[in-house]
Amino acid sequence: MLKIGIIGCGRIGRVHCKSIAHLVPEAEVAAVADPLMNDEIKAFARQFGIKRFYEDYHEILEDKGIDAVLICSPTDTHSEISIESACAGKHIFCEKPIDRDIGRIRKVIDAVRMAGVKFQVGFNRRFDSNFKAVRDAVATGKIGDVEIIKITSRDPAPPPPEYIAVSGGMFLDMTIHDFDMARYISGSEAVEVYAAAAVMVDSAIGEAGDVDTAVVTVKLANGALAVIDNSRRAAYGYDQRAEAFGSLGCVSISNNTNSSAVLSTSKGVCGEKPLYFFLERYLQSFGDEIKAFAQAAAGDTDTPVGLEDGLAPVLMALAAKKSAAEHRPVRISEIEQP
Amino acid sequence: MLKIGIIGCGRIGRVHCKSIAHLVPEAEVAAVADPLMNDEIKAFARQFGIKRFYEDYHEILEDKGIDAVLICSPTDTHSEISIESACAGKHIFCEKPIDRDIGRIRKVIDAVRMAGVKFQVGFNRRFDSNFKAVRDAVATGKIGDVEIIKITSRDPAPPPPEYIAVSGGMFLDMTIHDFDMARYISGSEAVEVYAAAAVMVDSAIGEAGDVDTAVVTVKLANGALAVIDNSRRAAYGYDQRAEAFGSLGCVSISNNTNSSAVLSTSKGVCGEKPLYFFLERYLQSFGDEIKAFAQAAAGDTDTPVGLEDGLAPVLMALAAKKSAAEHRPVRISEIEQP
Amino acid sequence: MLKIGIIGCGRIGRVHCKSIAHLVPEAEVAAVADPLMNDEIKAFARQFGIKRFYEDYHEILEDKGIDAVLICSPTDTHSEISIESACAGKHIFCEKPIDRDIGRIRKVIDAVRMAGVKFQVGFNRRFDSNFKAVRDAVATGKIGDVEIIKITSRDPAPPPPEYIAVSGGMFLDMTIHDFDMARYISGSEAVEVYAAAAVMVDSAIGEAGDVDTAVVTVKLANGALAVIDNSRRAAYGYDQRAEAFGSLGCVSISNNTNSSAVLSTSKGVCGEKPLYFFLERYLQSFGDEIKAFAQAAAGDTDTPVGLEDGLAPVLMALAAKKSAAEHRPVRISEIEQP
Amino acid sequence: MLKIGIIGCGRIGRVHCKSIAHLVPEAEVAAVADPLMNDEIKAFARQFGIKRFYEDYHEILEDKGIDAVLICSPTDTHSEISIESACAGKHIFCEKPIDRDIGRIRKVIDAVRMAGVKFQVGFNRRFDSNFKAVRDAVATGKIGDVEIIKITSRDPAPPPPEYIAVSGGMFLDMTIHDFDMARYISGSEAVEVYAAAAVMVDSAIGEAGDVDTAVVTVKLANGALAVIDNSRRAAYGYDQRAEAFGSLGCVSISNNTNSSAVLSTSKGVCGEKPLYFFLERYLQSFGDEIKAFAQAAAGDTDTPVGLEDGLAPVLMALAAKKSAAEHRPVRISEIEQP
Repeated sequence: MLKIGIIGCGRIGRVHCKSIAHLVPEAEVAAVADPLMNDEIKAFARQFGIKRFYEDYHEILEDKGIDAVLICSPTDTHSEISIESACAGKHIFCEKPIDRDIGRIRKVIDAVRMAGVKFQVGFNRRFDSNFKAVRDAVATGKIGDVEIIKITSRDPAPPPPEYIAVSGGMFLDMTIHDFDMARYISGSEAVEVYAAAAVMVDSAIGEAGDVDTAVVTVKLANGALAVIDNSRRAAYGYDQRAEAFGSLGCVSISNNTNSSAVLSTSKGVCGEKPLYFFLERYLQSFGDEIKAFAQAAAGDTDTPVGLEDGLAPVLMALAAKKSAAEHRPVRISEIEQP
Repeated sequence: MLKIGIIGCGRIGRVHCKSIAHLVPEAEVAAVADPLMNDEIKAFARQFGIKRFYEDYHEILEDKGIDAVLICSPTDTHSEISIESACAGKHIFCEKPIDRDIGRIRKVIDAVRMAGVKFQVGFNRRFDSNFKAVRDAVATGKIGDVEIIKITSRDPAPPPPEYIAVSGGMFLDMTIHDFDMARYISGSEAVEVYAAAAVMVDSAIGEAGDVDTAVVTVKLANGALAVIDNSRRAAYGYDQRAEAFGSLGCVSISNNTNSSAVLSTSKGVCGEKPLYFFLERYLQSFGDEIKAFAQAAAGDTDTPVGLEDGLAPVLMALAAKKSAAEHRPVRISEIEQP
Repeated sequence: MLKIGIIGCGRIGRVHCKSIAHLVPEAEVAAVADPLMNDEIKAFARQFGIKRFYEDYHEILEDKGIDAVLICSPTDTHSEISIESACAGKHIFCEKPIDRDIGRIRKVIDAVRMAGVKFQVGFNRRFDSNFKAVRDAVATGKIGDVEIIKITSRDPAPPPPEYIAVSGGMFLDMTIHDFDMARYISGSEAVEVYAAAAVMVDSAIGEAGDVDTAVVTVKLANGALAVIDNSRRAAYGYDQRAEAFGSLGCVSISNNTNSSAVLSTSKGVCGEKPLYFFLERYLQSFGDEIKAFAQAAAGDTDTPVGLEDGLAPVLMALAAKKSAAEHRPVRISEIEQP
Repeated sequence: MLKIGIIGCGRIGRVHCKSIAHLVPEAEVAAVADPLMNDEIKAFARQFGIKRFYEDYHEILEDKGIDAVLICSPTDTHSEISIESACAGKHIFCEKPIDRDIGRIRKVIDAVRMAGVKFQVGFNRRFDSNFKAVRDAVATGKIGDVEIIKITSRDPAPPPPEYIAVSGGMFLDMTIHDFDMARYISGSEAVEVYAAAAVMVDSAIGEAGDVDTAVVTVKLANGALAVIDNSRRAAYGYDQRAEAFGSLGCVSISNNTNSSAVLSTSKGVCGEKPLYFFLERYLQSFGDEIKAFAQAAAGDTDTPVGLEDGLAPVLMALAAKKSAAEHRPVRISEIEQP
């Protein structure tokens, strides 16, 4: 039984508390830390049998009975807590991104390798049955050599302006999942990125220095082209589709709904809107990623989403940002070098 | 916290053990009874924190700390255990059917009413999001007055001949769920049943005196017509669809799959087969029905699937059996009367 | 070049005028007869190069230059004109049904056989690419032995009461196409029919002695069961679907639309309604049936929909009518015998 | 009745012969010219009642009885014949592209304007019911302000190397239709193009100096982004899809098939492949574009696809070519200027 400490008990930390209780019998949450620890958090956690609560996550790091941590704190603390956790000998599951700074990610990589602990980054979509089906079709050769990958990723509604300000920008905050999917589906690395981006949804986003709509083209090392289209707002809900096209065919996935009901009336033939947002759409995958982490942490296998998987999409996001700013294709090697 | 005793720890009893642990925080399984109690059952149950094990279910009935029972034993024991449980003051969740004999079902009804305990019968499909969407479209008037209901229900493969022998026949064993769906979707009661049935799948089924393929037409009290088509074998897997047609339109549902992936190759444009069988297809609904039972047992509300819902589909099944045998439409009133 | 005379220039007669001009280069319409011949009909026909017009169809029968007739007059004249046409040595394409009376159909059969002319009945759905695909899947063994056939056939709106009065009733007027489809798809003949029918759409239909909603079960000679559901009114338009299920799988077709456009908005994910009614939905098939007739008439092959195909669905319709009236399954042999 | 002369009687010239005979009653083909005129062409044309045949198209231009020409000759003759036809006072339908050289297109524009004849360019997809439905949804505001347009256009198989050599390259030969669709759907003009392109299908295409796979991003004057993905080979057939996304929703279209049949077996749930290639897929649109041309030529209205529509996609194609060669986004204004 893997003993887990959760660092940060906001929205995603709570999703993991619940998932571990319900879906991961091989692990249990021994303690939760949050600088804003209060009765509401305690009441939430006690439902799942969690008994120890801290304001300071260092108490988790010092607890010899805890084997692993889930880092669910704000993004700008991920790399520091990761390094401290590695030094404390804890296995680490860290929400994405590890950091927005390549230098700090490299320090995490060094610390984790030195400590010899397991590390997994929170790219949950790899555990979703739709995206897995696309990747599996590619990996097993069903579409031959992959040539074009298309990813549509649109949020139902933009985040509040104050979130935009600390998000690192759309490419690092939102597209980063799609960059991970391009690598996951293709089994190849990005070589160059071209981003056409604009503010179409909310001028406040533009005023905060960010974009809300983009079409990003990625050249991959295996020669394939990937194209991602993003919007911070889709009137019909969370739009999460992908397609891989190759020498022998094409595999595509569509959105998930609450039911398959189709209503035919004088107005048309209508199905349901997609599941509203990531908590609804990817609920199962949040459980499955932690289950996979617990199994890797308890065993001899590597985690399925490792340190390199934490670095590469950040490089792609930074290249996209630079491409949009400089209005030209940008090679990953331009970002990568110290 | 509702304390539950599970009587019978075969396939469906175990589904409920697991569901309660993962999906029903308001209940816990205090004890499990099975005449074939052994180390394997105990090991299974201990995973979910269950600690008390009996061979004789009467020990559960005598346990004052237990509030409710789930009756997951063989069908021919359902009515007797239900009556004993009612007398012991336990709330009852009983797998379908309550009994194959109308007289014994009436005795259960009397005993439960006398004892004043809550009773729910295991028609899990009412908790499935697809079937709920059809019912809701009807109930909220989206299709106007319902006129035609169509239910397709085909198993992936026939049960073994020894199961057929004790099953009570296809109408009582398999179609009974579809009869429940006809009532649930229409919100109306059956008046008359006509069953055209045959042996097309396996001659051993015919030799056991049963049928494996049927088209059953039901006239409902509200004037609507329902038609159910059944087969004990569908090469492509478990086929579970329904459609309700009315004065303002039509609502229909299709099968669920593991992913929405569609593979286009020189051979065609192919999606996945339906989820294999009821344990895969209806997993969520098994949890949700127990959750609803636990909430009703703990509170002041009625269970969502009560005694009458346990009786009516058995009447319909017996009418279908008589119709197929006598080659004529049979009225429910012919079956109902003592 | 086959010279055709069209007898009756109402809605369907005009469809054929147009089809022959546009889609059947191997035939031309030499003359049109209609008891209500007027300038409007002439103007319509002249568009397609038609130059001879008669009030009395006998002039067509007497014209040695005409090889074949299309009988598009009211149903109650079909059998008489068919017999006269056969005696005149003309090949015959007759709209469905040949007659509503079995005795008169038999006389047509005798006359046509005696004369040795080609005869085709207007079951156009056999030429529709959807229904052909179902039949072909069955005929080529793709679904193994056929076990269940399901046909949904719903009109967008009921005909006017005055049409009902002369229509022969829903089974002979509307369901007859579905009976033909059951035979066409299965490649087998009906043995017994059970019809559950009611008036749900328009009480005026009931007052005219007819029904507007039905579920009809047909037992076929090869052991398969077919079920047809009909309504005279579907709020979303013409609903024309079918499904054949067998030992190796299932083939199904859905409705045709003007485009595949799907609009996703805050209200849902909506496609178009089906093509409005038979003239829109089956336009191509009306041309293809005449093309097939012209080729058979000009060559040594049989027509693809012959005399027996004209008789059998009428027997089924009469059995359905009797079944609904007598509230019991009715064997075709009860209708068939003189 | 508009009298038409067809110049060039290869594949597309013949499609138009046939369409005019069957679908365009307001026009007739008076003569056909082809430098390779022979008995086979004459036999083909005579089926449709065409009686005059020339080797030299000037005879058509000199014929006072001919009102309009369809220019279906090789691409490198389009502009010259267009200019001569305009001078001869004929209305002109010219297959796409008018020319691959901007200067020569401008000369055609001048000549046509000077002569005051009607001019239509053969962008047939504007007449396809799927693409029209996308455009109409945008034009009527159903998706709000358009933000992202996605067009997938993949041929079933690459053309022979000798065709590649004279084709002007993929962007001018194939993508040109997609560029037209981006303008048609958005109702806006391209400002800048970025093309990522490669040889993935056939190295002979690369040796001929062309590409066979591309992802092209277009910035439009209204601020929207369009992305086109192309391949010269799709194992499953001709892939012709589009999607428009905007502030209020999204509209998308899928491929057309011969039937809607879905076959469910132990191997999966499979539909048909798309209609094979443009002659099958766009048959109806070829007729409808000529019908629209004939109506404009005979009346006072403009043609629906005019001179500017002939120029703009060529500018986009040349920008794409330059972008791929120079590996940077290219503005239309760089191409446009003399």
